[in-house]
Amino acid sequence: MTDSPHDLTDAGLLSPVRAGTAAEAATGDRAWLQAMLDAEAALARAQASLGTLPKEAAEAITGAADADRLDLRALALAARRTANPVVGLVKAFTAEVARRDPVAAEYVHRGSTSQDVLDTGTMLVASRVLRIVRDDLTRTARALGELAARHRDTLAVGRTLALHAVPTTFGLRAAGWRALVLDAEARLARVHEGGLPVSLGGAAGTLAGYLEYAAVDAEGRRPEAGTYLDQLVDAYAAETGLARPVLPWHALRTPIADLASALAFTAGALGKIAVDVQSLARTEVGEVAEPAGEGQGSSSAMPHKRNPVLATLLRSAALQVPALSAALTQCLVSEDERSAGAWHAEWQLLRECLRLTGGAAHTAVELAEGLEVRGERMRTNVELTGSQVVSERVAARLAPALGRTRAKALLTEAARTAETTGRPLAEVLAGLPDLPDEVAGDLAALCDPANYTGAAAALVDRALRS
Amino acid sequence: MTDSPHDLTDAGLLSPVRAGTAAEAATGDRAWLQAMLDAEAALARAQASLGTLPKEAAEAITGAADADRLDLRALALAARRTANPVVGLVKAFTAEVARRDPVAAEYVHRGSTSQDVLDTGTMLVASRVLRIVRDDLTRTARALGELAARHRDTLAVGRTLALHAVPTTFGLRAAGWRALVLDAEARLARVHEGGLPVSLGGAAGTLAGYLEYAAVDAEGRRPEAGTYLDQLVDAYAAETGLARPVLPWHALRTPIADLASALAFTAGALGKIAVDVQSLARTEVGEVAEPAGEGQGSSSAMPHKRNPVLATLLRSAALQVPALSAALTQCLVSEDERSAGAWHAEWQLLRECLRLTGGAAHTAVELAEGLEVRGERMRTNVELTGSQVVSERVAARLAPALGRTRAKALLTEAARTAETTGRPLAEVLAGLPDLPDEVAGDLAALCDPANYTGAAAALVDRALRS
Amino acid sequence: MTDSPHDLTDAGLLSPVRAGTAAEAATGDRAWLQAMLDAEAALARAQASLGTLPKEAAEAITGAADADRLDLRALALAARRTANPVVGLVKAFTAEVARRDPVAAEYVHRGSTSQDVLDTGTMLVASRVLRIVRDDLTRTARALGELAARHRDTLAVGRTLALHAVPTTFGLRAAGWRALVLDAEARLARVHEGGLPVSLGGAAGTLAGYLEYAAVDAEGRRPEAGTYLDQLVDAYAAETGLARPVLPWHALRTPIADLASALAFTAGALGKIAVDVQSLARTEVGEVAEPAGEGQGSSSAMPHKRNPVLATLLRSAALQVPALSAALTQCLVSEDERSAGAWHAEWQLLRECLRLTGGAAHTAVELAEGLEVRGERMRTNVELTGSQVVSERVAARLAPALGRTRAKALLTEAARTAETTGRPLAEVLAGLPDLPDEVAGDLAALCDPANYTGAAAALVDRALRS
Amino acid sequence: MTDSPHDLTDAGLLSPVRAGTAAEAATGDRAWLQAMLDAEAALARAQASLGTLPKEAAEAITGAADADRLDLRALALAARRTANPVVGLVKAFTAEVARRDPVAAEYVHRGSTSQDVLDTGTMLVASRVLRIVRDDLTRTARALGELAARHRDTLAVGRTLALHAVPTTFGLRAAGWRALVLDAEARLARVHEGGLPVSLGGAAGTLAGYLEYAAVDAEGRRPEAGTYLDQLVDAYAAETGLARPVLPWHALRTPIADLASALAFTAGALGKIAVDVQSLARTEVGEVAEPAGEGQGSSSAMPHKRNPVLATLLRSAALQVPALSAALTQCLVSEDERSAGAWHAEWQLLRECLRLTGGAAHTAVELAEGLEVRGERMRTNVELTGSQVVSERVAARLAPALGRTRAKALLTEAARTAETTGRPLAEVLAGLPDLPDEVAGDLAALCDPANYTGAAAALVDRALRS
Repeated sequence: MTDSPHDLTDAGLLSPVRAGTAAEAATGDRAWLQAMLDAEAALARAQASLGTLPKEAAEAITGAADADRLDLRALALAARRTANPVVGLVKAFTAEVARRDPVAAEYVHRGSTSQDVLDTGTMLVASRVLRIVRDDLTRTARALGELAARHRDTLAVGRTLALHAVPTTFGLRAAGWRALVLDAEARLARVHEGGLPVSLGGAAGTLAGYLEYAAVDAEGRRPEAGTYLDQLVDAYAAETGLARPVLPWHALRTPIADLASALAFTAGALGKIAVDVQSLARTEVGEVAEPAGEGQGSSSAMPHKRNPVLATLLRSAALQVPALSAALTQCLVSEDERSAGAWHAEWQLLRECLRLTGGAAHTAVELAEGLEVRGERMRTNVELTGSQVVSERVAARLAPALGRTRAKALLTEAARTAETTGRPLAEVLAGLPDLPDEVAGDLAALCDPANYTGAAAALVDRALRS
Repeated sequence: MTDSPHDLTDAGLLSPVRAGTAAEAATGDRAWLQAMLDAEAALARAQASLGTLPKEAAEAITGAADADRLDLRALALAARRTANPVVGLVKAFTAEVARRDPVAAEYVHRGSTSQDVLDTGTMLVASRVLRIVRDDLTRTARALGELAARHRDTLAVGRTLALHAVPTTFGLRAAGWRALVLDAEARLARVHEGGLPVSLGGAAGTLAGYLEYAAVDAEGRRPEAGTYLDQLVDAYAAETGLARPVLPWHALRTPIADLASALAFTAGALGKIAVDVQSLARTEVGEVAEPAGEGQGSSSAMPHKRNPVLATLLRSAALQVPALSAALTQCLVSEDERSAGAWHAEWQLLRECLRLTGGAAHTAVELAEGLEVRGERMRTNVELTGSQVVSERVAARLAPALGRTRAKALLTEAARTAETTGRPLAEVLAGLPDLPDEVAGDLAALCDPANYTGAAAALVDRALRS
Repeated sequence: MTDSPHDLTDAGLLSPVRAGTAAEAATGDRAWLQAMLDAEAALARAQASLGTLPKEAAEAITGAADADRLDLRALALAARRTANPVVGLVKAFTAEVARRDPVAAEYVHRGSTSQDVLDTGTMLVASRVLRIVRDDLTRTARALGELAARHRDTLAVGRTLALHAVPTTFGLRAAGWRALVLDAEARLARVHEGGLPVSLGGAAGTLAGYLEYAAVDAEGRRPEAGTYLDQLVDAYAAETGLARPVLPWHALRTPIADLASALAFTAGALGKIAVDVQSLARTEVGEVAEPAGEGQGSSSAMPHKRNPVLATLLRSAALQVPALSAALTQCLVSEDERSAGAWHAEWQLLRECLRLTGGAAHTAVELAEGLEVRGERMRTNVELTGSQVVSERVAARLAPALGRTRAKALLTEAARTAETTGRPLAEVLAGLPDLPDEVAGDLAALCDPANYTGAAAALVDRALRS
Repeated sequence: MTDSPHDLTDAGLLSPVRAGTAAEAATGDRAWLQAMLDAEAALARAQASLGTLPKEAAEAITGAADADRLDLRALALAARRTANPVVGLVKAFTAEVARRDPVAAEYVHRGSTSQDVLDTGTMLVASRVLRIVRDDLTRTARALGELAARHRDTLAVGRTLALHAVPTTFGLRAAGWRALVLDAEARLARVHEGGLPVSLGGAAGTLAGYLEYAAVDAEGRRPEAGTYLDQLVDAYAAETGLARPVLPWHALRTPIADLASALAFTAGALGKIAVDVQSLARTEVGEVAEPAGEGQGSSSAMPHKRNPVLATLLRSAALQVPALSAALTQCLVSEDERSAGAWHAEWQLLRECLRLTGGAAHTAVELAEGLEVRGERMRTNVELTGSQVVSERVAARLAPALGRTRAKALLTEAARTAETTGRPLAEVLAGLPDLPDEVAGDLAALCDPANYTGAAAALVDRALRS
């Protein structure tokens, strides 16, 4: 065993996507410890509000609930003996309260169980991080919305299966990114607003301990179970700002699975933007560039590079969070009234999902607000294949005269000729002996990619209204 | 290459959880092919309703849209050349339509793209399967609700980290299972009712092909793009019964990710019930047994066994679906206007999620409706440790007199003595020299597990109301 | 329940990567059933070779072991009642044997258990598929080796983080692909040659049933357990061609985890080649193209496209197999002497890993043998940035005179100027006032990318020797 | 952005399985930074050994390579600008060297690239951790071997699908656990001894930078590329103690995938032991208990509990590592000469795999060395079902007289009677009218579970020899 505090720094060296972000600070061990202490304090205040615990005790407990007063490392090491950090935390925190108010110390963690404290603390952490992530997504969506509006009519080539397909606009692409970001925000909002409940079950989810102490503290006048249950859960929810669960959820892990799913969606959605930016930033494509800045995107070896580092960070998160999230979903399979392992597997997985996604959302703001869009290069690229990107259109125009099958075959052939000879498609077509008049007469306009963006502009308008 | 149709049977031999279920039939290759044909037909009718395609053609197309008329295997083999089965399908289907009505054949897949057909077909399959799954979950929840009501006060031991913890009731456990099933149903309902959109984007999501053919078919009177877009999407949604998307979603995979997430949740939730049933069915525990029946649960070797096979099947699904679902979530990271691989990875993963979850829901009905509950054995088990399960309670009662820390230490010691000597905890406690009167006088009632179920009954009542 | 055999076709419609491949045929339900029958027959022959079963019975059993004589669907449906298909298989197969030889029927599955048959059958299937996959990988490696040799000196640009980095050769890239393929082959070979053991444990891994019947059949002369164990395992291994395990592995799932890991590696390794091919095939890059052929790579909408479909199929497998493989690895966590669910989850996951990887290896052969390499375009692309790709080199040359830091800063600045003005880097450098002579005098040669491929050729030579 | 070092502590609060273990210390940010500095120093020494760098510079670089001299947090924050921590590290480290020896500073990172340093550092970390893990597995295997030998003949019930199956011995179970642990050790050994190569490729894997500086430093006498390549890789491997790769592996991620796979196997294998221990430790089963100790296994609420916390920690790791490992395997799909994201996703995933598995191996030692085995309770449990566990045996004995099918049916019926009436199976059988003599005469011995352990003892002997 080694104890050197020196070795315990997690500076984010291996996880730059979240290094220095607000989500990182909100998910560190200290933040989690504070959240668990907040849960203990809120519980005491809730019990006090029902008269089963002296108000002074609740105040003393609240006053002592400061993570800086406890030895984080000692708690972590002690957790190996009990498989969770709360047993040690309760002991240390009780001692801390006792130092101020020995009577109050009797009321710490009264009737409670480790899982109530850890799960409620986790929900508090999640709630704080979701606030941050949602704000960053909102900012990202706003920036993308501006890009979409500004480039509503900026001609660009649409690419499918890695190849030029038909024309589109950069605005439509940006509107799509924005739609995904809004989808992510909506999924997080659903969890954030109502899906993060307090945990209040006692040893095995019956609240028996809470009720027993309530009776003890009321000198034997045992409160009616249902009434007290309702009141205590309401009071606890009010004190923490969290939701009220239908049932104690020690082994009914819906809140964790929901969080995991919404976070995976978010990281994945931002990953889609990232791979698009990388595809567009490739040296040969050059349609976008990441925001410049001193040293931004530099390489240790190559002076000329300005790497798409923000997209790289986003993609690194997108490759991690869904896998972590799946492991969390599997923890739904929690046996008995508290699993011997599935619960314990959740903690670090969830923390990592929260801070990676938080880091990604922060990074997405930088990317969306700073993205350099090169409309001219987009135009050049559209024309790279000499109007082959309108082959679908020409085929459609020829269909009435030739039938669709022959029309498509003709265009396939013409496109192949265009490719092998390097001549523009329009020119190849013009050279065909019996091209129907309705096409031959209009060939230049027909083959102009700018005339074949379909409903792109209308789609942008509609998407931005949503 | 081998073609023997003989080798192509997927009877469910390796996936008994779904063999013979409605979800299996609804997700087979034939069902998928039919759904894609339904999508083609619905598109034609939608275009006809807007006047850009002759009504007769739409009728002929609809009439020919029968999977049995196409050679499934030939389509599958052809799909290797184009990386998707739609290119071949359109060709074969067009020929089929042409056999009936050569003019109509011109209007098959008009303006469309492979992904519109495959994705819309997928949404139709998903919609049909979700209907089945949701019905099965509703039946399961009803059966569990009845169990919870019937066993509202059936004393049982609560277990945490594999050990007896404190008393609970079987009713509370069943109410928890039901809550999870309702959570699953709610998540599927959210996707089912509004989250399954038609796909309508054309080659690269601009609807350019649809618009071009609309113009061609209207003899050059080009419809206003936005208006036509709105009308066509509305008509297509109406014809299929699917939702209307904000934007074409070829590379914005929210519907797939949402489906994946809700299915993983469902399989996981049912897996929780399964591991509980297995834990309770263990030979030494014997609190529940799976429904009996001719050959049900029999072994190839051991005549005496009646294995918990339904729970086993449920667990097998719960171990698979979240992993498959994670791979689907990762497909959010789809580059460009259509991914060269991420889209293609979705199909089989999603089919497997649908049919495993469908099989699991079907299995859950059997389990919930047939579960044999042995209240007597539960009572016996509660008493197995000689009231140690109320140690928490006694500690609470002693707290005012001894202080909480000393009270807990005293009970820890007494429990240890009880365990090593095999004497009941109450007896050990009675032998202690200075047990405070308030506890000593009440020891029998205090140590009766039946008196320490906390708010279990009230929780059942509340849960069943939700 | 639905039974229509008609709905049971799995033609590979949703999984084109394996449609029609040998791996598909080798992993279908029928193939699996045959492998289980082969396991039953081999067991009987092994027992006969030890004299505990009449040779005629073994022959009759072997003669009847034909999957076509059993009703696959009936077995699959029956499997729901026992959670595995073997209980029903033994019953149906015994009846089939009895039809030929009633005495022999007594000796079917003698002393055995479902898991011995299913696991041994699975190993037989795996062994057959690995043979196919390894052959395809060997062919792929050979083709890539030829590409590497042919293009040992074909200048190309190396790309890192999506941007041009420094020059390399196409030969080095192909040699890297080959190295990965050989790594995959080596990992599969390790499993194939010794890692696929027979399963022989009897009801709970003690071989008690086998021993009991041996005693019964020897009329009470009970064989020495250890001796008989050794002989039976050896004989069974010899009859099946599989390996001999250290212990019965019903709940020690090393063989499955090893298979899963090697298959995931293989699919992932081929996926690397796929994304490189796609990156190089992009319209703007155009350095490679997939093999052409009638209809190969065509689109349902766009006549001009020749999509990189083989790479797309490879990538679709690479996105699936690692996730499925992870679920298989998790099945190591199998409780007791046989897990109630973890074992059952393996079957379909493993089948899918085998056939996806098998399909991918088949596809890789097509891709590697047919890849069209465009050396001229590679040369054009290298020069796209006007020698910026040698900025690292120029910095190195300037280091002695300026110090490394100043040298790098100077090049960063020069590269920026080159980029914004569009002038070649060499020209920008030539214009600098005080460029040291050792660089200024040699600028043209120094800035020729062809002179800066480092050890690429030597690396190719060394790699091809391995 | 927040910087408070205070918030950066990762004490292991949420990951008790590794808190305070040697693997934790060996995988922290500081350890990783030190390993990267070790890589820089080893590179300098390797270059010096070839005469292309002054020996004094190599010494100065080695002397300055101390993680404590660098600002970890500043490096982590700077990494966001370049998507990896090495760019900043080289700058800071160069300054640190310059402070001691300005000339030596010119030779830091000479010709190198970020990925060479980070990947080589990663291999050093992995090598150090594997040493620890392998030692712990060896200790675990030894302890399990002793358990297996001691309990070679300790009768216990074998359980399949959660139910009593046939008798076995605890020794066979422990031998199986040991076999898995040895399998894990063998897989890690394979990677450790030869599978952890240095990374030496330069900017895009051609070693061009290294060669260029070698030429510069040799005043233009350019070394032959192949010779220098061989010498430099050999020297680097010698200086680091790592293996020599066939090719630079920036985008050929075999070493990472192999590591991931072996770690997932290890965590999974230990998870199998964990779920068995939990199954056996259940209150109703009570066949084993975890090692006792002050506060070990205590609960925050329930004084009587002694939770199987070590098994719980093991299981928590087994639920995480395979999922993380799958994400690492997916990073095989790394495009181009260096991926823009897949490489970056590896770091934190791999760290987590290493430290979770390291923590699990440490925990396994504690569990294996301290496990309390209760042979008496095992005996009691075997008899719980009144010899039903020998029903297979009796059926075998009856087979010659009745035929196997009738024999099995008779036992199925008798077992059912035994279960419903609660009478021992032997008694039920004795009451049957026409039980064949060969069985009736021997009923007591035949129904004694101790006589039906098959080859368990011989299997233990063989396994312990391996």
